Amino acid sequence: MTSLDILLRPRSVAMIGASGDVTRIGGRALRHLKEVGFAGDIFPVNPGRDEVQGLKAYAGVDDIPGRIDCAVLALPTGAVLPAIEACARKGVGGAVIFSAGFAEMGEQGVLLQQRMVDIANAAGMRLLGPNCLGMYNLHAKSFLSFSGIFDDVKGTAGRLGLVSQSGGYAGEVVKSAQEVGLNFGVWITTGNEADVGLGEAMHHMAMSDDVDVVVGYIEGVRDRQSFFDGLAAAHARRKPVVVLKVGRTEQGAKAAASHTASLAGSDVVYDAVFERYGVYRARTTEEMLDVAYAASRGHFPRGRRLAILTNSGGIGVQAADFAADEGLAVPTASAAVQTRLIEISPNGAPFNPIDLTGQVANDPPMYARAIDVVLESAEFDCAYVNVGLIAGLPFIKRPLLDSLKAVAKRFADVPMAASVTADAETLAEYGEAGFLCYREPARAIKTLAALASFPLAWDRDLPDASDLTGLPTLERGTALSEAASKAMLAGIGIPSPAEHLVQDPADAEAAAMSIGCNVAIKVVSPDILHKTEIGGVALGIDPKDAAATLEAMVGKVTASMPDARIEGYLVSPMITGGTECIVGVHTDPLLGPVIMFGLGGVTVELLKDVTMRLAPVTEDQAMDMIRSVRSFPLLDGFRGRAKADVVALAQAISALSRLAAANAETVRTIEVNPLLVLDKGNGILALDAVIET
Amino acid sequence: MTSLDILLRPRSVAMIGASGDVTRIGGRALRHLKEVGFAGDIFPVNPGRDEVQGLKAYAGVDDIPGRIDCAVLALPTGAVLPAIEACARKGVGGAVIFSAGFAEMGEQGVLLQQRMVDIANAAGMRLLGPNCLGMYNLHAKSFLSFSGIFDDVKGTAGRLGLVSQSGGYAGEVVKSAQEVGLNFGVWITTGNEADVGLGEAMHHMAMSDDVDVVVGYIEGVRDRQSFFDGLAAAHARRKPVVVLKVGRTEQGAKAAASHTASLAGSDVVYDAVFERYGVYRARTTEEMLDVAYAASRGHFPRGRRLAILTNSGGIGVQAADFAADEGLAVPTASAAVQTRLIEISPNGAPFNPIDLTGQVANDPPMYARAIDVVLESAEFDCAYVNVGLIAGLPFIKRPLLDSLKAVAKRFADVPMAASVTADAETLAEYGEAGFLCYREPARAIKTLAALASFPLAWDRDLPDASDLTGLPTLERGTALSEAASKAMLAGIGIPSPAEHLVQDPADAEAAAMSIGCNVAIKVVSPDILHKTEIGGVALGIDPKDAAATLEAMVGKVTASMPDARIEGYLVSPMITGGTECIVGVHTDPLLGPVIMFGLGGVTVELLKDVTMRLAPVTEDQAMDMIRSVRSFPLLDGFRGRAKADVVALAQAISALSRLAAANAETVRTIEVNPLLVLDKGNGILALDAVIET
Repeated sequence: MTSLDILLRPRSVAMIGASGDVTRIGGRALRHLKEVGFAGDIFPVNPGRDEVQGLKAYAGVDDIPGRIDCAVLALPTGAVLPAIEACARKGVGGAVIFSAGFAEMGEQGVLLQQRMVDIANAAGMRLLGPNCLGMYNLHAKSFLSFSGIFDDVKGTAGRLGLVSQSGGYAGEVVKSAQEVGLNFGVWITTGNEADVGLGEAMHHMAMSDDVDVVVGYIEGVRDRQSFFDGLAAAHARRKPVVVLKVGRTEQGAKAAASHTASLAGSDVVYDAVFERYGVYRARTTEEMLDVAYAASRGHFPRGRRLAILTNSGGIGVQAADFAADEGLAVPTASAAVQTRLIEISPNGAPFNPIDLTGQVANDPPMYARAIDVVLESAEFDCAYVNVGLIAGLPFIKRPLLDSLKAVAKRFADVPMAASVTADAETLAEYGEAGFLCYREPARAIKTLAALASFPLAWDRDLPDASDLTGLPTLERGTALSEAASKAMLAGIGIPSPAEHLVQDPADAEAAAMSIGCNVAIKVVSPDILHKTEIGGVALGIDPKDAAATLEAMVGKVTASMPDARIEGYLVSPMITGGTECIVGVHTDPLLGPVIMFGLGGVTVELLKDVTMRLAPVTEDQAMDMIRSVRSFPLLDGFRGRAKADVVALAQAISALSRLAAANAETVRTIEVNPLLVLDKGNGILALDAVIET
Repeated sequence: MTSLDILLRPRSVAMIGASGDVTRIGGRALRHLKEVGFAGDIFPVNPGRDEVQGLKAYAGVDDIPGRIDCAVLALPTGAVLPAIEACARKGVGGAVIFSAGFAEMGEQGVLLQQRMVDIANAAGMRLLGPNCLGMYNLHAKSFLSFSGIFDDVKGTAGRLGLVSQSGGYAGEVVKSAQEVGLNFGVWITTGNEADVGLGEAMHHMAMSDDVDVVVGYIEGVRDRQSFFDGLAAAHARRKPVVVLKVGRTEQGAKAAASHTASLAGSDVVYDAVFERYGVYRARTTEEMLDVAYAASRGHFPRGRRLAILTNSGGIGVQAADFAADEGLAVPTASAAVQTRLIEISPNGAPFNPIDLTGQVANDPPMYARAIDVVLESAEFDCAYVNVGLIAGLPFIKRPLLDSLKAVAKRFADVPMAASVTADAETLAEYGEAGFLCYREPARAIKTLAALASFPLAWDRDLPDASDLTGLPTLERGTALSEAASKAMLAGIGIPSPAEHLVQDPADAEAAAMSIGCNVAIKVVSPDILHKTEIGGVALGIDPKDAAATLEAMVGKVTASMPDARIEGYLVSPMITGGTECIVGVHTDPLLGPVIMFGLGGVTVELLKDVTMRLAPVTEDQAMDMIRSVRSFPLLDGFRGRAKADVVALAQAISALSRLAAANAETVRTIEVNPLLVLDKGNGILALDAVIET
């Protein structure tokens, strides 16, 4: 049960603006509701008619006897507010508003929409829309949409649920799904999201026993917390979530900005969200449906080891390529398994890809026998079988299908996919036999890889807010100086080189002498963020030159920025060796703080070799981040270098991410650049740092 | 006409090993040939029968009266050689050998196969196979394959041609194509390629008027020259070539190595080959067929500017993403076009994506009117239309289809693709109306991008061998010293810093003094390739220290490599500034010399930010190479740097590639690393170079 049940499982519906003409919005919606077999009361509201489509009609909501769970508003824009007021008076539980002309139309519409929300909130009434295509829940035989596509849709209560921020696209998805035999049992279009938004709708589906897989279409999230809550609920129940989020590319984001009024947020930050919650992000509708279909079967590989079985060496090689594309391993079968495979196919290749050769056509159950050997070994987590064109050939099809069905039943919890070169009916038969079936081998393998991604994410705990205690507090609207930033970092376990804040040349020389090696000298001021440009940085200074250097620096700095508040000058040792990295925090206005890691220099700035996660991350997750950049070998002994202290680096990344998460509402950016990672066992040093709120 | 016509357009066929049992190889092949309606003579050869499948049979080839263009050998391995000998005696034009048991079986088989080739060569007889599934040419009603799949294949003489190095996969392709209504008119499986190989088969199709698009499946090329000749013929005739080459990934290459006996060659070098000849490389069978189908229509965009027309904003954004994925631009429509689009769709978005809104359902010809405006403007090279689920709706389908058909006819030479959410029949109707039709928008857009790639390559001249005169000759089996390498580079216009070859400390000092700045000193010896390791390099030496430095170096070098032939020591100026690049040549044992370019340091070694082309390249192509690396901005003024002399760099790349191409048979590697690119107008300097043959 969620608070959306009143909309998705209503016991009575008032259809405001009901029409006898089924080509009109209020007529078509009523017809759909009647035809789906809704079991509760239906109250058409139409002041000009006593009866609509054979049902008694009422002049207004107030005239309806008894309780109304859900009201549907199919009205001109101007008539919506009075109807909402009437619903509020009547104590209606929730309203679905088809009508457009609100927030999507600019400032006036925003005000109108806000008024509607205020009335609903005061009355405890939930709203879907406005400017939406409505929703349906075939499990409750409730159908509250006027979309024309449902005129030729037979409502089969499938186990997939769709939440879409586009009504038109939501219709396309249902229709595309039907073309491949898939059915959405619950379907919600959120429109302007005046009240119920994407996140709450996803949360409902995550909690609903009617939905096995939550499918989402996202243009831009409006409410971070409810979005995260919805995804967390699905994560907790190990329910797969598959989304298509548009605006992946700069060109797409530009198109999205002109299409949707909602804040888009940074697309890479969405990726960080999906990574945390284990959401599968599809690139195309086809891929989204492929993965949703596969996930709805409820079995997921325990790892990423794929067995490839083929009757054509060429397709075996292709499959190995596709597996590499998707990050699936194709390990060679053990000697014991190879021995048994050679018994089954003496002229085949028993390694992996396992090639049983064209001989399968003469002895179709060979495939099943080989699968049996392969899966019994527990050396593989999933299997791909190239059935190919023999799938539908006379004399072959029946023994092949029967034997495959038996072995699929025996290993029902191990996902198996097949490529089948045949017509749709034959494909469906192999599907019913227990295989995920596609014509194109690449799709079969991509889907197996998608399935493998879910349990990895579900097995990982989500961050716990109660772990974020005892961290420093960042006030809003400040920019900490380098010294203050470093002091704060030191407090969370990120050290900086020993350094001395001095005020004059004599102190500078004394400090440099005490350090005992060449030093760096930098001005310290909350007003100066770009020190180098104004001559506020001197590097590699011999201690005996420290006094003169400081004197010259004071002159340059005061000449450039006479009004800057100068806290002093920092004298610190020149550090040599180690690898320069960048660790940063950036707060997305929509999705909150993210933690970023990359190696210094052009790898980050130019080659975008950087990784990003939602803050906070654990040390284990930080280690994953470190290992995920392409330039990681530079920290890992590349070409005879010393190995770097990645353990200390992971600790620093995690600590910084926790600082950011604890201050999610105030932090803007934190940049530790460079963060010097010393040789293994020697830790890290923050050489420069800026914290801004 | 090509020399393969004897196999692909035979006037008479001897079927050696013909059988009355149509489930056996020699029986099935004969049946196929009869059923396809072959118009020439068919001579079954079977020593035990007077008649086979109603045709007079002969005891041996020698007994057949009259000329035999083509013999088909469906025989046990042991019977093949005697039959080949008989065919040679008889003067048969060509033979197709189904039988396996030759080179694919190891050393013995290789010898047997070579014997067969020798006999055929001596007799001027061409061979296809052995170990192949044969070939067909429906345009000549010739069908010489025993593959079981053709039992239920109706031979439609489509305009696509397939050459495949895998027989099994070639069958899958034909069957997959049929499922989507495509037909291959000519089909060749090359098997062991004892004589006719991939390249010659592709060349035949490039020259054949029966084939509009050449489709190839490649595991590994055996004969570079015929492969290049085949691709060059297609390039010259502007005939599209679409291939699937397996072993793209390390995992796939490993699988390929165990599957095929042929040398694989480096996969990235194949990409360089495809780049030169404008071959489209597909990743999947589906993509290969999508592009082949689209290319067979014979119209190609003149540029990469895509117009996106949609009735759903969400799909418009997706389409913009897909276009970015494929490198298509989505430019905003001009003000004039926007004005006319607003007249058509007052509430739509006239930019690009052009969103006509759901209003299209009420006025289906809106799409055609908008396409008319868009294409008449000449602001776009191709168009994508999201028809979606309205495609098949009653009352909409007819006016929509009729109007789209009319506009497609008007702009018949502009490729247009559509996504259609409907059944296969409806898809086909929109296809016949002139649109490339797919269910998934991503496929529609990928195909348009593929089409756009062809004319770009066709418009580029292929390299002309006669341009490669006057270049230095590299003898086989030598490793040039740094000095000799630099001297050779200087001869082709790639300068090195002024430098002096000296023999003793006094000369070193004199040379350094004459240079007048800090110098580098390096040992010069054809026996020492890794100079640094043995103390043979000293950098940043003050001229007054040159004598002492040389003395020390002589000691170290002679201690480490007492037997090395020392030509002397190179004294050269220390150069500062500029950007270090790497330009190299690597000769692939299979595909010949390639030229490689990247920026120095980790970008090449670790991040693989390097580009490669087949040698030679023109200066224009070299400029494309320079611009194609991700780190190019470092040469182009990134963050306030000076712009580098990329013109001189392009000249150097082109010159080096020509040197390599002129010495294709001997050169092994050339590495100019670093090649220092100075500021614009200041040229380049080869700081180190190694040439090995």
